[in-house]
Amino acid sequence: MATGFDPHVAAASIEKLKDGARDSVRDELAVEEPLEIRVDGEALAVTMRTPGEDEELAAGFLAGEGLIGGPADIVEVGPTRDFAANTVEVRTKSGLRRNPKDERSFYLTSSCGVCGKGALEFVRQEAPASRHKPSVTAELVLSAPSAVRSRQSAFDRTGGLHATGLFEASGELLVVREDVGRHNAMDKAIGSLLLAGRFPLEGVFAAVSGRASFELVQKASLASLIGVVAVGPPSTLAVDLARERGMLLCGFVRGGSLNVYAGSELLGN
Amino acid sequence: MATGFDPHVAAASIEKLKDGARDSVRDELAVEEPLEIRVDGEALAVTMRTPGEDEELAAGFLAGEGLIGGPADIVEVGPTRDFAANTVEVRTKSGLRRNPKDERSFYLTSSCGVCGKGALEFVRQEAPASRHKPSVTAELVLSAPSAVRSRQSAFDRTGGLHATGLFEASGELLVVREDVGRHNAMDKAIGSLLLAGRFPLEGVFAAVSGRASFELVQKASLASLIGVVAVGPPSTLAVDLARERGMLLCGFVRGGSLNVYAGSELLGN
Repeated sequence: MATGFDPHVAAASIEKLKDGARDSVRDELAVEEPLEIRVDGEALAVTMRTPGEDEELAAGFLAGEGLIGGPADIVEVGPTRDFAANTVEVRTKSGLRRNPKDERSFYLTSSCGVCGKGALEFVRQEAPASRHKPSVTAELVLSAPSAVRSRQSAFDRTGGLHATGLFEASGELLVVREDVGRHNAMDKAIGSLLLAGRFPLEGVFAAVSGRASFELVQKASLASLIGVVAVGPPSTLAVDLARERGMLLCGFVRGGSLNVYAGSELLGN
Repeated sequence: MATGFDPHVAAASIEKLKDGARDSVRDELAVEEPLEIRVDGEALAVTMRTPGEDEELAAGFLAGEGLIGGPADIVEVGPTRDFAANTVEVRTKSGLRRNPKDERSFYLTSSCGVCGKGALEFVRQEAPASRHKPSVTAELVLSAPSAVRSRQSAFDRTGGLHATGLFEASGELLVVREDVGRHNAMDKAIGSLLLAGRFPLEGVFAAVSGRASFELVQKASLASLIGVVAVGPPSTLAVDLARERGMLLCGFVRGGSLNVYAGSELLGN
């Protein structure tokens, strides 16, 4: 294992369930935090990213949007002066090639609010107050990903779709939705119950096919889900939010074992 | 294999390279297209999604952003009247709970422009004209993912990061960047070369750790890359764009085999 400080990685205490035994272990998580990209003194975009190489991210983002044509258009990419602020500043030679705010050339996805801690505060304000949540058995959590997978018809054909399944704590699989975007799959699954008249979704948890990002846990929180169970790992901010909201968050749910990152008391035997 | 019409899946003719042999085969791709979500007559957001269940997606999106509180806030979610328009309309009972345009509660990511065909047109206009691209050997493409993987230090520790590596057509690995967001990893990799004074990146191709979405191929196109090589599959719109731009697009590059979705003439022996 690599050692030394790495801004991409953060340590966390978690529980590991394997062969029926639950143990507390130290784990390492991919760091996820919002970054505000500012150009010539004005906020342009906020993206959820892993800290490190923020200047590169800003420069590559502007090039990838066609907003700058090359190195000559950049006078300076400011080192983030205040690390906690999660802001990077770009000074251009003569402005951007076009004003993205004048046109529909960006698309929007999910919320984040003010940077850093603000993202958690947004959710704290917006999400309904936590009520008593029913617990979920470890057996159900362990079997959830394969139950979702068996209903992913388009994945079988393409290998290319994320999925979200919503389960009752008692075990019933309510709905599975697939999409190229992990956030869309969750929006569709939650939206299908909402359009059927059920929302918020107390007593329901989500099983997702990939990683558990902040965005997914935030959507789950706003829908009052018990928690999120993922085949992949969560990010730091996803864990922070789940702990803050008293939600169950499991990752690496594969082959009979899983990690519990938050809400261990909601995982029954 | 499942049969019958499924809006999530589309057929494509591709080349498969396996055990040194190249064959033309029929394949199925996950469909990816932009969807504009409109609320009470006004455009709110555009997201890249897999078609199908658009009403659910719109309802779940609004709930997940805290813009509606439940079913009672929705009067009607319009069936997409014009399929080609890729628009879904939500009519609310008394407006959204807050005006997302008044605040910084959305974050922006990548471009898409006007819906549907417009996305391709945006890139056609913005990307530099195609010049002669050097070809890349199949051997180099097959080895690229493992070369990137071996330099993913944070992935080893967390299992949770996407990566983009940029290679010269001659084989040199120029840079590897990791991030929780696949688009950020590519922005960082491209940005690192741009800040070092090199942009556009003619003669360079990208190897990415996951799927090849439209967004990644668009970023590659705007940077004048030869193409994109992915461990996972591409979406329909990614293939359309790569073909439109004369780019190499390989997917499922694993265990000595790969699929060529676009720019077969750029893959040498």
